[in-house]
Amino acid sequence: MVGGGQGAFIGAVHRLAARVDDRFELVAGALSSDPQRARESALELGIGIDRAYADWREMARAEAMREDGIDAVAIVTPNHLHAPVATAFLEVGIHVICDKPLAVSLEEGEALAKLAREKRKLFALTHVYSGYPLVRHARTLVEDGALGEIRIVHVEYAQDWLAEPVEAAGANRQAAWRTDPRRAGPAGCLGDIGTHAYHLASFVSGMMPNAVSAELHTFVQGRQLDDHVQALLRYPNGARGMLWASQVASGAENALRLRVYGTEASLAFDQEMPNELWLTMRGGAAQRLTRGRIDSVDALHATRVPAGHPQGYAEAFAQLYLDAALQIEAMDAGRPPPAESRLLATVDDGVAGLRFIEAVLASSAADGRWRDLR
Amino acid sequence: MVGGGQGAFIGAVHRLAARVDDRFELVAGALSSDPQRARESALELGIGIDRAYADWREMARAEAMREDGIDAVAIVTPNHLHAPVATAFLEVGIHVICDKPLAVSLEEGEALAKLAREKRKLFALTHVYSGYPLVRHARTLVEDGALGEIRIVHVEYAQDWLAEPVEAAGANRQAAWRTDPRRAGPAGCLGDIGTHAYHLASFVSGMMPNAVSAELHTFVQGRQLDDHVQALLRYPNGARGMLWASQVASGAENALRLRVYGTEASLAFDQEMPNELWLTMRGGAAQRLTRGRIDSVDALHATRVPAGHPQGYAEAFAQLYLDAALQIEAMDAGRPPPAESRLLATVDDGVAGLRFIEAVLASSAADGRWRDLR
Amino acid sequence: MVGGGQGAFIGAVHRLAARVDDRFELVAGALSSDPQRARESALELGIGIDRAYADWREMARAEAMREDGIDAVAIVTPNHLHAPVATAFLEVGIHVICDKPLAVSLEEGEALAKLAREKRKLFALTHVYSGYPLVRHARTLVEDGALGEIRIVHVEYAQDWLAEPVEAAGANRQAAWRTDPRRAGPAGCLGDIGTHAYHLASFVSGMMPNAVSAELHTFVQGRQLDDHVQALLRYPNGARGMLWASQVASGAENALRLRVYGTEASLAFDQEMPNELWLTMRGGAAQRLTRGRIDSVDALHATRVPAGHPQGYAEAFAQLYLDAALQIEAMDAGRPPPAESRLLATVDDGVAGLRFIEAVLASSAADGRWRDLR
Amino acid sequence: MVGGGQGAFIGAVHRLAARVDDRFELVAGALSSDPQRARESALELGIGIDRAYADWREMARAEAMREDGIDAVAIVTPNHLHAPVATAFLEVGIHVICDKPLAVSLEEGEALAKLAREKRKLFALTHVYSGYPLVRHARTLVEDGALGEIRIVHVEYAQDWLAEPVEAAGANRQAAWRTDPRRAGPAGCLGDIGTHAYHLASFVSGMMPNAVSAELHTFVQGRQLDDHVQALLRYPNGARGMLWASQVASGAENALRLRVYGTEASLAFDQEMPNELWLTMRGGAAQRLTRGRIDSVDALHATRVPAGHPQGYAEAFAQLYLDAALQIEAMDAGRPPPAESRLLATVDDGVAGLRFIEAVLASSAADGRWRDLR
Repeated sequence: MVGGGQGAFIGAVHRLAARVDDRFELVAGALSSDPQRARESALELGIGIDRAYADWREMARAEAMREDGIDAVAIVTPNHLHAPVATAFLEVGIHVICDKPLAVSLEEGEALAKLAREKRKLFALTHVYSGYPLVRHARTLVEDGALGEIRIVHVEYAQDWLAEPVEAAGANRQAAWRTDPRRAGPAGCLGDIGTHAYHLASFVSGMMPNAVSAELHTFVQGRQLDDHVQALLRYPNGARGMLWASQVASGAENALRLRVYGTEASLAFDQEMPNELWLTMRGGAAQRLTRGRIDSVDALHATRVPAGHPQGYAEAFAQLYLDAALQIEAMDAGRPPPAESRLLATVDDGVAGLRFIEAVLASSAADGRWRDLR
Repeated sequence: MVGGGQGAFIGAVHRLAARVDDRFELVAGALSSDPQRARESALELGIGIDRAYADWREMARAEAMREDGIDAVAIVTPNHLHAPVATAFLEVGIHVICDKPLAVSLEEGEALAKLAREKRKLFALTHVYSGYPLVRHARTLVEDGALGEIRIVHVEYAQDWLAEPVEAAGANRQAAWRTDPRRAGPAGCLGDIGTHAYHLASFVSGMMPNAVSAELHTFVQGRQLDDHVQALLRYPNGARGMLWASQVASGAENALRLRVYGTEASLAFDQEMPNELWLTMRGGAAQRLTRGRIDSVDALHATRVPAGHPQGYAEAFAQLYLDAALQIEAMDAGRPPPAESRLLATVDDGVAGLRFIEAVLASSAADGRWRDLR
Repeated sequence: MVGGGQGAFIGAVHRLAARVDDRFELVAGALSSDPQRARESALELGIGIDRAYADWREMARAEAMREDGIDAVAIVTPNHLHAPVATAFLEVGIHVICDKPLAVSLEEGEALAKLAREKRKLFALTHVYSGYPLVRHARTLVEDGALGEIRIVHVEYAQDWLAEPVEAAGANRQAAWRTDPRRAGPAGCLGDIGTHAYHLASFVSGMMPNAVSAELHTFVQGRQLDDHVQALLRYPNGARGMLWASQVASGAENALRLRVYGTEASLAFDQEMPNELWLTMRGGAAQRLTRGRIDSVDALHATRVPAGHPQGYAEAFAQLYLDAALQIEAMDAGRPPPAESRLLATVDDGVAGLRFIEAVLASSAADGRWRDLR
Repeated sequence: MVGGGQGAFIGAVHRLAARVDDRFELVAGALSSDPQRARESALELGIGIDRAYADWREMARAEAMREDGIDAVAIVTPNHLHAPVATAFLEVGIHVICDKPLAVSLEEGEALAKLAREKRKLFALTHVYSGYPLVRHARTLVEDGALGEIRIVHVEYAQDWLAEPVEAAGANRQAAWRTDPRRAGPAGCLGDIGTHAYHLASFVSGMMPNAVSAELHTFVQGRQLDDHVQALLRYPNGARGMLWASQVASGAENALRLRVYGTEASLAFDQEMPNELWLTMRGGAAQRLTRGRIDSVDALHATRVPAGHPQGYAEAFAQLYLDAALQIEAMDAGRPPPAESRLLATVDDGVAGLRFIEAVLASSAADGRWRDLR
């Protein structure tokens, strides 16, 4: 693991996710850019002193040399390091599991995608919300035509933790780097949660927009990056969409919600209530689907506990680690990845996300002029 | 009453609304443009044969002459007749209660507003959703600063009854006129329900946007008017907003929903569940407000049945009739309108709605270019 | 109308309900036992001075003599007067619409039922919750076998307005008479809301229990009547049930909820959200039924406003007045009551409610021993 | 681990729960009474061949002898084996983590409790629902007096998977043993899920009833044990309660719901939506509490992922394993158990559950006569 030392947010979640299905063991880490914190964090996590690296470059080099070197690295640093770290590990032939967004520029992301292909290594991107069983079932319903032709896609992701300038005080390390263009890249809220919303919408609808008209906004004075984004979408098949992401939406905790309307039916999903998926036929009554009330290979593959017993974010995250393990196993054995792992987000999804970021930035800079998504 | 004969949709609702508080009596009508249907409809409703008019012009003339002539006319025709009918009645000094949208063009609407002012007659516009007690309470909360400075306004109005070309068969009279530019005006879904959404957002937030970037769309082949509209909004205080209205959103019945986020708290209202209003402080727990759990003069004024006993659309509509009665009474007596009736939508709200329609049409025609709302 | 003067609770609701469908006119009243309040209340309601009675006996006598005498009387007094007032009006041949509970003893109730039959007059009992369209639809679903054989019935009615001794202060007139055995009869919470719960359960399930094991309780010190009742039920077909009613359930407003489980499916209804009815098949997904998403003669008959537009308590109440009007019209014309009015609660439902009260009182007095409901 | 081989239900959940916090390692097992299945199951789980026992007696003996013997055993067998297995391991000084119900008779349970005390070993009982952060917060609220004096406790646990005689076919092994008195003990639904409901109610309210009036029922013909239980409760402080558990409630998945009403406020929790807890003050608005919106040491201790990110059943189960680990660590070191682990269910909770079962069986046999809970 690179990043994820004491005080970090997402590293612990990655480690928990990896444990759920018992397919990975944490044996080495460059957990912090601060050497002492790196060492202490490693100790706490039971990593041997010889594999507690102060520097990720060194870690890549050393692990590649060891006979018992790591199979895969989990990258949980701030955004600006995703690409350099991933590059270092890909270069030495180590599989990568990387947090989103993929990189801080489209160029960087495309280079990574090229490298991963050349090195024939896995590059999994942890768009965790695609790991929920009912999100996967939603995708299946769309694929199977249950919604008819898709007409409307609505996705939103609202939080309120940045409604005030919490980064100013310095105490909130999460806020500090996420609002700092040097570490977060040129997109603030857009990169942090907008990309999740974008991926979820694409994942379920099976479509990516071909044009966007968007507006970024910064509500909190002195903040350098956007904390609010609103966008209109056009899809190749004529569908229309809206995307909204905000980190200043007072009262919202982690309100990622998707609705997809087709000619025959619509779907609604709310990640804060991930054990239900709403399906409503045109002119019909809303139905509350749950894992126990559907029959779905993809949902089953993402199931850990019996029907009626709620799953949560940890299992969704674990699903990505499981799919990654299945693919790594297959790659290492020279087999094609197993079918049930096919929904894992990859470096290509990351590139798509960066393409969206770039288009939104450009459209917003051009006062909302529609921009093509190449 | 003008319009609202057999087979009409909204006329019966107006009549019910007028009965709830017992402030009006239906004594005359030009209920249909078809003379026989007009007569039969009048008979059914207990209107005397001498006051069952075949023509609204004649009705205005005749009623103005009678000593026991009507105090007010309710206009429930298709949109294109709103302005001519209202003009006719205002001209002869009769108060007007008119369905929305006010008219089929901004010009027409502004002329009406001018006329109403000159004639010193009431011009009430039935933006019914502003009649719900909890919508009025929401407005009060905003006015009282409970939300802090408003940052984000989200409003949407989704239906699915026009998801297929139901107007083509001819059997659906409602669909027929609402998708016919000669009767509905240049805006389809935008005029029919988009204006409701727009009014509700303005009513609660206490703000009107100063610019809009919008896109109209027609999903159903052969339809002449838009059946879908999506728009981004900018407000004078820097707030941002989104408005969505669709009549092809499979599964949606009458899903008008508003969310307003301020620096301190947010509000959410769903007209399909009008007996609850959600208030969530920044960083706080969502609270489900009900009539019985708030203390609000405006909500009380809109209350008909005891707390815990649901109210519905009929009472919201009745509220407009009650407020209209209170204002007519005051105007006729030369008194200022009573304070509790102040929230009644008027011809000026109608003009604002037409201004919005015009700007959306223009922005959409200009590929989403931002347009000022004068 | 007898009762319902200034400061009363339910009288205004009855009057509103009667206006909704415009089938009744309020022309006479003995609105209060206090002569001055009776007169003032009548004035306020537009009742002529000659028909503003200070005494209901006099009203019955006088109205029976008038050629334009009332067709029906609405009785909205405290419970102990229901039977004497109803008797007086039935005796002189006037139809009765009476609030629940029917009377303060089973004996009294049975005498009333006998009298109503002899006099061949309507005796409608305002078990208002059976007037909701979706409650009627629920009954239809059960009748049509959609649930299979009924196995379990759960009904509860929780409020919190009597959680403290509000009757002690004297200011709360509603609390005062409802907790006073001389006016409310021997059952407090049981008679006031328990009977509503019991009727709703019977109405929807189409079954009445044949035995009950119950316990009354009074939580508030000094209160003379029960404020809490819990009971187990057995039905003739082997079904089991539970009934709970409480007026000290902190946080509950007017939470009347019914669930019925059959071998094939279950239903759930919550009167605080009366525009939805939940139907879930065994092993299936919950479906949210609304007026606009069902096809039901009985629900349609109880519909006042278009689908997607919420109805409330007023329309449910109005439904009873409409059904009463239809039956009175038919009775007066010597015709059988029209089929669509068949769901109106009658004096026999009132007798069933009193039988339940009697059995609960007896079981509770016998430390919960099972008591047959004759 | 004893039990939990191939085809078992709860064993995999225990193993997942143990992995979440990484405090246990699975190194030995008697996973099935069938030797071949035991061996195959062990292989699948990575247990060494030498510690894959065919018999739990042998496992207890052998593990006690090994220097690297297990610290604790997880017992996930059918009910009738809980006591014998636990006894065997306690006797040789191994800590026990046991599924519920504790045993098949009160006598057996009391003996176990005595033994555990004598041996000074941990006996954790996996009443998993007490592991949810918001359940723990609910208990804290009650303890802190936020509800005032408790007046009413309502708990219910409804499922529908036994609505038909699925045990008859033989294919459903879960149904087979759970409806077989030789393996499940004398209580069917009552023992299987009724005890969970009972524990949850006690856990949150901090009270145990002193008397019960109950009725067991078997709806499915030919079934030997109850599949439905309904009961009235009396508490020492005068509070009243109702408990309902059913496995034939068509449409219910795993609907464990608790409501507690005090003089000042009420709480509601639904295990199918475990990321919210409803708190409503008397006369106040309902508040939706979430992990991110409360400040609670106990909820924090049960938190695994960031606020706004749902937790589920796995984390609740893991919480018991974490608390068990903390207590085992302390016991082995001769320290008192750490305060934060205090909410772990123990053998005494199991005894309380058996006492409840016994009283319900007795009351039901006596036609609902109230029975004291000693």
